[in-house]
Amino acid sequence: MAPASLTARFEQSVTANAFRSYLAEFISTFFYVFAVVGSGMSSRKLMPDAALSPANLVIDAIANAFALSTAVYIAWDISGGHVNPAVTFAKAVGGHISVPTALFYWVSQLIASVMACLVLRVTVVGMHVPTNAIAEEMTGFGASILEGVLTFVLVYTVYAAGDPRHGSLGPIGILAIGLIAGANVLAVGPFSGGSMNPACAFGSAAFAGTFKNQAVYWVGPLIGAAVAGLIYDNVVFPSQAPDSIRRVAEGVGV
Amino acid sequence: MAPASLTARFEQSVTANAFRSYLAEFISTFFYVFAVVGSGMSSRKLMPDAALSPANLVIDAIANAFALSTAVYIAWDISGGHVNPAVTFAKAVGGHISVPTALFYWVSQLIASVMACLVLRVTVVGMHVPTNAIAEEMTGFGASILEGVLTFVLVYTVYAAGDPRHGSLGPIGILAIGLIAGANVLAVGPFSGGSMNPACAFGSAAFAGTFKNQAVYWVGPLIGAAVAGLIYDNVVFPSQAPDSIRRVAEGVGV
Amino acid sequence: MAPASLTARFEQSVTANAFRSYLAEFISTFFYVFAVVGSGMSSRKLMPDAALSPANLVIDAIANAFALSTAVYIAWDISGGHVNPAVTFAKAVGGHISVPTALFYWVSQLIASVMACLVLRVTVVGMHVPTNAIAEEMTGFGASILEGVLTFVLVYTVYAAGDPRHGSLGPIGILAIGLIAGANVLAVGPFSGGSMNPACAFGSAAFAGTFKNQAVYWVGPLIGAAVAGLIYDNVVFPSQAPDSIRRVAEGVGV
Amino acid sequence: MAPASLTARFEQSVTANAFRSYLAEFISTFFYVFAVVGSGMSSRKLMPDAALSPANLVIDAIANAFALSTAVYIAWDISGGHVNPAVTFAKAVGGHISVPTALFYWVSQLIASVMACLVLRVTVVGMHVPTNAIAEEMTGFGASILEGVLTFVLVYTVYAAGDPRHGSLGPIGILAIGLIAGANVLAVGPFSGGSMNPACAFGSAAFAGTFKNQAVYWVGPLIGAAVAGLIYDNVVFPSQAPDSIRRVAEGVGV
Repeated sequence: MAPASLTARFEQSVTANAFRSYLAEFISTFFYVFAVVGSGMSSRKLMPDAALSPANLVIDAIANAFALSTAVYIAWDISGGHVNPAVTFAKAVGGHISVPTALFYWVSQLIASVMACLVLRVTVVGMHVPTNAIAEEMTGFGASILEGVLTFVLVYTVYAAGDPRHGSLGPIGILAIGLIAGANVLAVGPFSGGSMNPACAFGSAAFAGTFKNQAVYWVGPLIGAAVAGLIYDNVVFPSQAPDSIRRVAEGVGV
Repeated sequence: MAPASLTARFEQSVTANAFRSYLAEFISTFFYVFAVVGSGMSSRKLMPDAALSPANLVIDAIANAFALSTAVYIAWDISGGHVNPAVTFAKAVGGHISVPTALFYWVSQLIASVMACLVLRVTVVGMHVPTNAIAEEMTGFGASILEGVLTFVLVYTVYAAGDPRHGSLGPIGILAIGLIAGANVLAVGPFSGGSMNPACAFGSAAFAGTFKNQAVYWVGPLIGAAVAGLIYDNVVFPSQAPDSIRRVAEGVGV
Repeated sequence: MAPASLTARFEQSVTANAFRSYLAEFISTFFYVFAVVGSGMSSRKLMPDAALSPANLVIDAIANAFALSTAVYIAWDISGGHVNPAVTFAKAVGGHISVPTALFYWVSQLIASVMACLVLRVTVVGMHVPTNAIAEEMTGFGASILEGVLTFVLVYTVYAAGDPRHGSLGPIGILAIGLIAGANVLAVGPFSGGSMNPACAFGSAAFAGTFKNQAVYWVGPLIGAAVAGLIYDNVVFPSQAPDSIRRVAEGVGV
Repeated sequence: MAPASLTARFEQSVTANAFRSYLAEFISTFFYVFAVVGSGMSSRKLMPDAALSPANLVIDAIANAFALSTAVYIAWDISGGHVNPAVTFAKAVGGHISVPTALFYWVSQLIASVMACLVLRVTVVGMHVPTNAIAEEMTGFGASILEGVLTFVLVYTVYAAGDPRHGSLGPIGILAIGLIAGANVLAVGPFSGGSMNPACAFGSAAFAGTFKNQAVYWVGPLIGAAVAGLIYDNVVFPSQAPDSIRRVAEGVGV
C-alpha cells in the first residue's frame, strides 16, 4: 500500500473491475433490502399490529439472517460483500479500501436500497413501506447506542470472516455474518428496530416519507463499525496484512 | 463446446449418465415439492385461515429453505441440482446444457411435482392440495414482476454456488440457495406466494384443478432466471469457462 | 469385503473400536431423542392443545433439524452417525455393515431412546411423554406410506453425505441431514407425526404406555430406508466402492 | 505438556497473547449474553406473559443458536471460543488449559455478562432484565439434572468441533455448537430455562436482583461439562493428543 495521490486512487475506482464491484454491491444490497423490507410488509399484511407479535419478530430475524448470508456470499469474491455502508465505512477508516472507492460503494448501496423499496412499493398495491421505529420508552440516544453495539459485533464478524488466516473455517464465517444479524434483530427488534444497516434505513425512510430518527441509524452504526474494525486490526489480530484484504475488496476476484 | 448437430446433442441426452441425471432431478424435485406442498397442507390443517397467520409464513419459509438446500445438495454432483425449470431454462439459454437435455430435465421436474402432489393427495384423506395465490390487491403483472425478481436472485445464487472459482466457499453456496429461497418466501409470501419454481406451481395447480394465474408463475420466473444467468456469465464474472459448468451439468459426476 | 463366517463377523462386533461405536450411537441417539421428545413436552406445556398451533410445529421442526445435525456430526467419525435404526437397517441391507454390528447398533439406539425419555419423565414432574399420533382422517396405511417416503429422502441424504466422492461438499451433507428432517416434520407433522425414526417412536411409546400404531413407525421407515440405500448404491451412484463407507462405519475414526 | 510450577503457569497467563484471549472471550461472551438476554426482553415486551407462548420459545432458541455459533466462531482461533465458564471448567479439568488461565477466562466471561446486561438495562428504559426460572412443578434437583444433561451434550459437541482429527468437517462443528444449544432451549426452556451457561445466568441474576436457584445453573452445568470432557478424551476418542488442543486454547492463533 504505497501512498498514492488522490487522483491515482480515483482512477483505481473507475476501472472495469471496480465497476463490477459496484454492480455486485448493488445486486446484493438490492436483494438484502428487498427481503428485509418485503418481510416487514408481509408481517404487516398478516397482522396489522405487527409490532406486538412475537411471530413477526421471528419473520424479521429469519429474513435478515437468510438474506444477509446469501447477499454477502454472492458478492464476496467480487466486492468483498459489504452490503452495508457501515462495513464500507469501517474498511475505509482502516485503510482497506480507498475513500473514492468507498464513496462509490455507498452510492451503489443507497441506490440499491431505494430501488428495492420502489419495486415493492409499486408492485404491492396499497401497502406502505415499513420503516424502523423506536419504542416509546426508548430515548434516541439509547437506541443509537443499541444500534452501535449491534453493528460492532456485525462488523467484527465480517472482519473475522474476511481474515485469510482462518483457513478452512472461512465458509462458516459468511454464514455467521447472517446468523449474528438475525440474533441481533431478536435482541433489540422491538426497542430500536435492529437495522444495523444505514442503507436499509435510508431506503425505507425515503418511501415512508419521514427521516425522523434517521440519525440513530447512521451515527450509532458508523461509530460501532469503525471501532470494531480498528479493534480487530490493531488489538485482537494485530499482525493482519492489509494487502490480503485489499485484494479481495478491490474486486480482483479469484 | 464445438457446435454439434441436433442429432448429436439428442444422442448425448439419452446416455446412461444422462438418465441418471434425470432420475436425480426427479428425486430432488419430488422431495422439494413434497416438503413445500406438504407444509402448506400442514399449515392449513393447523389453522384453516392460514393466509392470515405469521406463524404459517414461517413454516412455509423454513420448509422451502431446508428442503431446497437438501434437494440441491443431493443432486449437485449428478445433474447439477437444478430442481427448478427456471434454473434449467437459464442454463439452456446460457449454453451450459443443450436444449434436448433441458427438455428432459423439464419433463422429469414436472412429473416429479405431479407425483409428489399425488402422494400427498392420496395419503392425506380429505385435504385439498394448496396452490399459490395472489393477494386481492395485487395485479397479475405486479405478481409476475415479484416472482421474476425473486427468481433472479435465486438463479444468480445458483450460478455463484456452481462457479468452480469460489473454491473453499463452495459448500456454503448450496446452503445459500436454500436460505435465499426462504428469505424470498418471507418477503412476498402473502402477496404472490413466493413460488419461484414453475414445477411446484404446476403440480399443485394440477391437483387444485385451476390453472388460473399459472402464467404468473412461469413468465416472471423464466425471464428472471434467464436474465440472472446472462448477467452472471457476461457482466459480473465474465471470464467463466462454460466447460467447467458443463461437466457438472451433464452428469459426469465426480 | 471378502465373505466372512458369522463367527468372524460377530467377533468384529465386540472389539474395543466397535464398543466405541455403540457408545457414540448411544450418546447421539440419547440427545436426539432428548431434544425431540423434550421439545414436544415444552410445546405441550406452553399450549396444551399443541396439536392445533402452527408455532408448535415450528418448534418441533427446528428441534429435529438442529438436534439431528449435531447428533450425526458428533458420531460421524466414530460410528458413522446413524442415530436411527432405519439408517442402520439400510446400511445392513446394502452390506455396508455386518448384521451382528447392526443388531448392536439397534440395541444401543433403543436403550438410548428409552433412557432419554426416562430422564425427561423423572425430572419434569407431572408431564406425560408425548408420542407420535396419526390424524383422525388418516389411515394407518397412508401414514405408513408418508413415513416411508420421508425416511427414503432422509436415508438418501445420509448416503449422499457419507459418499467420499463429494469431496469439499462433505460438511454441508451432515447439515443437510438435519435440514431435510426439519422440512419433513413441517410437511407431515400434523398428519403422521413425522417421526422417521423407529427408536424415537419406540422410546416415547414405551412411556406413553401405548404401542398403538407402532407398526406405522417401523414398517414404513424400514422399507423406505432400504429402498433409498439400494437406489443410491446401484442406480444413482453405482460405482461406489463399499469399502470406503465401511471404513467410516466401523469406527476406525480419522 | 511438561509439569510446570504454579508460578510458571501464572506467567504464561499474563502474556500479551493471553490477554488477547481474555479480550476475545470478553467480546464473544458480551455478544452472546447481549443476544440471549436481549431477546428475552424483546419477548417480554411483545407478550408480557412470555412464559406461555410457543413463539417466544422459538425466539429464545433461535437467538441462542445464532448468537452462540457466531460468538464461538469469532473467538475460535484466539481463545478457543469457550464463551461459557462450563466449557472453561471442562478444559481445565481435562488439563487442556492451566488453572490460572481458566480463572482469567472466568473473570472475563462474568464481567462480559454483567456488562451486557448493564447496557441493555440502561438503554431500554423501564424493562427488567429477565432471568432463568424454574417451572413450578420442577424441583431444583430435577432442574439441575436437566441443565447438567444439556451442558454435557454442548461440551461434548465443543470437544468434537475442536478435535483436529475431524479434518474437513471442522467448520460444521462450530455451527453444530450453536444448533445444539438452540435445540436444548426448545427441549427444556419452559422447565428449567435452558441456560447451559453459568455466566449468562449470573449476569441476568445480578440485575434481576435475585440469586435464587443460582446453584442450579452452576452445579449441573459444571458437572455435566467436566464429565463430557473426560468421556470424550478418555473413552470415545482416547488417542487425542492434548497438545494440539492446547495450541488453540492458549491463543497462539493461526
